[in-house]
Amino acid sequence: MKALKATPAWQALLDERASIEARSIAGLFDDDPQRFEAFSIELDGLLLDYSKQPLTRATRDALLTLAEARDVAGQRDRMLAGESINTSEGRAALHTALRVPDGAAGWADAATTRAVASARRQMHEMADAVRTQCRTGATGEPIEHVINIGIGGSDLGPRLVLEALAPIADGPAVHFVANLDGVELERTLARCNPARTLVLVVSKSFGTAETMANAHEVMAWLRRRVPADDVLEQQVIPITANLDRVRALGLDPAAALPMWDWVGGRYSLWSAVGLAIMMGIGPAGFDALLGGAHGMDRHFAEAPPASNMPLMLGLVSVLNGTLLGRRSQAVVPYTERLGRLCAYLQQLVMESNGKSVDREGGAIEQPTAAAIWGQTGTPGQHAFFQALHQGTDIVPVDFIGVARPVAGEHGDPLELTANLFAQSQALMLGRAEAGIDAARRCPGNRPSNTLLLDSLTPARLGALIALYEHRTFVEAAIWGINAFDQFGVELGKGLARDLKPLIAGGQAADGVDGSTAGLVGCYRRWRR
Amino acid sequence: MKALKATPAWQALLDERASIEARSIAGLFDDDPQRFEAFSIELDGLLLDYSKQPLTRATRDALLTLAEARDVAGQRDRMLAGESINTSEGRAALHTALRVPDGAAGWADAATTRAVASARRQMHEMADAVRTQCRTGATGEPIEHVINIGIGGSDLGPRLVLEALAPIADGPAVHFVANLDGVELERTLARCNPARTLVLVVSKSFGTAETMANAHEVMAWLRRRVPADDVLEQQVIPITANLDRVRALGLDPAAALPMWDWVGGRYSLWSAVGLAIMMGIGPAGFDALLGGAHGMDRHFAEAPPASNMPLMLGLVSVLNGTLLGRRSQAVVPYTERLGRLCAYLQQLVMESNGKSVDREGGAIEQPTAAAIWGQTGTPGQHAFFQALHQGTDIVPVDFIGVARPVAGEHGDPLELTANLFAQSQALMLGRAEAGIDAARRCPGNRPSNTLLLDSLTPARLGALIALYEHRTFVEAAIWGINAFDQFGVELGKGLARDLKPLIAGGQAADGVDGSTAGLVGCYRRWRR
Repeated sequence: MKALKATPAWQALLDERASIEARSIAGLFDDDPQRFEAFSIELDGLLLDYSKQPLTRATRDALLTLAEARDVAGQRDRMLAGESINTSEGRAALHTALRVPDGAAGWADAATTRAVASARRQMHEMADAVRTQCRTGATGEPIEHVINIGIGGSDLGPRLVLEALAPIADGPAVHFVANLDGVELERTLARCNPARTLVLVVSKSFGTAETMANAHEVMAWLRRRVPADDVLEQQVIPITANLDRVRALGLDPAAALPMWDWVGGRYSLWSAVGLAIMMGIGPAGFDALLGGAHGMDRHFAEAPPASNMPLMLGLVSVLNGTLLGRRSQAVVPYTERLGRLCAYLQQLVMESNGKSVDREGGAIEQPTAAAIWGQTGTPGQHAFFQALHQGTDIVPVDFIGVARPVAGEHGDPLELTANLFAQSQALMLGRAEAGIDAARRCPGNRPSNTLLLDSLTPARLGALIALYEHRTFVEAAIWGINAFDQFGVELGKGLARDLKPLIAGGQAADGVDGSTAGLVGCYRRWRR
Repeated sequence: MKALKATPAWQALLDERASIEARSIAGLFDDDPQRFEAFSIELDGLLLDYSKQPLTRATRDALLTLAEARDVAGQRDRMLAGESINTSEGRAALHTALRVPDGAAGWADAATTRAVASARRQMHEMADAVRTQCRTGATGEPIEHVINIGIGGSDLGPRLVLEALAPIADGPAVHFVANLDGVELERTLARCNPARTLVLVVSKSFGTAETMANAHEVMAWLRRRVPADDVLEQQVIPITANLDRVRALGLDPAAALPMWDWVGGRYSLWSAVGLAIMMGIGPAGFDALLGGAHGMDRHFAEAPPASNMPLMLGLVSVLNGTLLGRRSQAVVPYTERLGRLCAYLQQLVMESNGKSVDREGGAIEQPTAAAIWGQTGTPGQHAFFQALHQGTDIVPVDFIGVARPVAGEHGDPLELTANLFAQSQALMLGRAEAGIDAARRCPGNRPSNTLLLDSLTPARLGALIALYEHRTFVEAAIWGINAFDQFGVELGKGLARDLKPLIAGGQAADGVDGSTAGLVGCYRRWRR
């Protein structure tokens, strides 16, 4: 495929680079009194303000020309239509099909639509049965706890959503276990009554090392502590695409919920992987989450380019990260409820687009996905904001705020919002009054987006997550990346398998590099 | 002061840059069979392996020459001796004095030593009294909950330590409230019985907006819910340097614990700011934490350069971040117990060194503090590791592991450690076997450090945190930065004060930039 640098639209942007860097963002508001209206997009209680980016209307046109040259719209349409856009694995990427409301016209074929509807029905029935206590544990006790065992996409999405929507969670308490270190497991088992606990084991392959290790431990705990022969059938739900392994584990394949190869792990919270969410907030809340995401899908598919939120967010990110070489980006949500957004986005963005070759295997010369990081505001202001304001690097920020209070009568939402708006203002304006000493001077002219939600509901959260999914897709489309494979993680898994017997002490630590041998030696000495 | 680029030692490194970048890290092990021994440092159950960095012995010598040229040792000695190294504020930076064991010879003057000893004694008495239930709530009930109200350095350190050391926490449950959004407050107040709750209000100025807002709300809750006139005297402990404001709030200055202007917020967990830690794990555990940090201080002060852990860690960071332009760094601890380390380090590193001017106000041309980010392993492997292995950017990683299991019989420590060692190996070795397709290829030659702890005890944790403090100091010394002020955060605070009445709707949103006016308009509309 054509390299980015061979695209005239990219060359045009390269030619403009120096003038973009030299441009005063604050000055752009003087030049264009309608700038806020022209550089913000509102959709169903979600506002994107990208007016504090170093874009003129002409620069935006140049970015839109680039999007056209890279056929972003065509790529989007092929994704929505279920074509095999994940070319390295010969798969479609149809997470958008998961969000089409029942009965509505979607983009996917009839078989996919049926599979989605059937799984959704199963989820509804299961969640309703547990939440109304029709379905009980093996000894007839009501389910009060759900343990979600999964890692990566089978963990981060449901965790994010349930933490964000905690105020409307009215089902069993949901706990998450991802890591192998036993800490989450220890904490979770100490809190759960085994006779009243439902376990979700979530892994597409049903072979993920961490998930299987934790599942074995929790299943042993159930067997040991619940006096019923059918405790595993009654209290463990496999969510997977691999029914053979379900059977091999002694679980009932008929009780399993499906995962499909056309939904990637990091795009899967909308599928049966979201069962933990539905257990927590109920089918109606989950459907609202899907509905919000679907609204964003429709907008992405239909809105004209200059007012297309994911398209503009993606283009601005390419501008900062690739054209201007700003190699990390901060995401700062102004509420603890979105405290896990950054971890979620690290997977979404960096696993999708942390790649150096294009869809045809050609080397990509320009930098692709930048590092995403952050903490919530205002605490982040008292942590790393010093570097945002006065550091040597320009770090673009996505500020995320919620207009209506997230914690009832508690907290100080006005002060919170004043801080949110003041920070993007301070980054843009800087501080350079006459006579101020160098240590207090702030250069300003630092870019940010602000995403404002009217309230933190399931629908808004669904739209927000889908927005970032599509932003990621837009970037991949510009760079020519297949955003839906992740071969980079294979190598480490293989090496870990090889190292395990060595670490266990079963063989001499030779044949490996000196560092690994030295580390293993130290580890063995300390484990004695 | 002399600019870095005017330092011949820096020029020598610049001349070597291309050959450092071209160097095969794996190849260095073939050239030097003693490489692991030569490029690792062990101290009291803590191992730093930096052999997977692109350093030869000659490059290390060049870095040590740079350290000499920038007088890192002299700067260190002046810090330890309590000189006013925080020149912009005319203050010493004496966090190391907080860790000298009682009666041992330290570096600070007698008055400081006395002040430290006296505060430590007060903390011990207070913690013991609460933990043994001699000190009760105002109505005579035992203290079962402690709420720590603070933000930034008055929050992140104690939070990190208590989460890491949860297995030995045997005192009252400690809760943290930092954010203004009310979420932590709501959650915490719902869990605490007001008659059995002790509140720590931690703010050097006793004027931090977030802390004061939350303190007012919690004090109102106490007054409302506990039928005792002296509930605030009995159940609120101010930790501050500003006794006038304590008095103004109706609290008793005699009950306050001190903060000093010679201990910066992000270096303060070792002071009375750590009272929450001591309540949780007891005075002996807290003293062990101090002892571990003091051991690292002594090592930093006394170990020869090439085997000086903080010095080498700092120099390697300067090599990657400044010389080679790698503008973000990942920190990946392989246990959930260190899940808050990254947030802690974001403040420590980026608030200390996220600056563009040197101690004399001269512009710094080279990049200073890089962005720090990460998640725990193994979950991080299923999130962003794709980008570490195959992304376009080289992101140096600090891997942190613990040899002895952190969760008793739970988890799979062997599999966990195999993954830890395999990841740094995979980053170094890459994958390029013949015939492999481009999408599966990993370039390798990506650098990392591994820090291995024999076990996660208070002493090891203290040493680990002190190690990163001194790493930060070493970097500041090389760049010529004052690591102990943070003027960059002032501007936003002022602007927030100005915006608050505007957001509240008291005046028209003019006189501000178009973006802020637009955001305020949208916010007001949605808040209606």
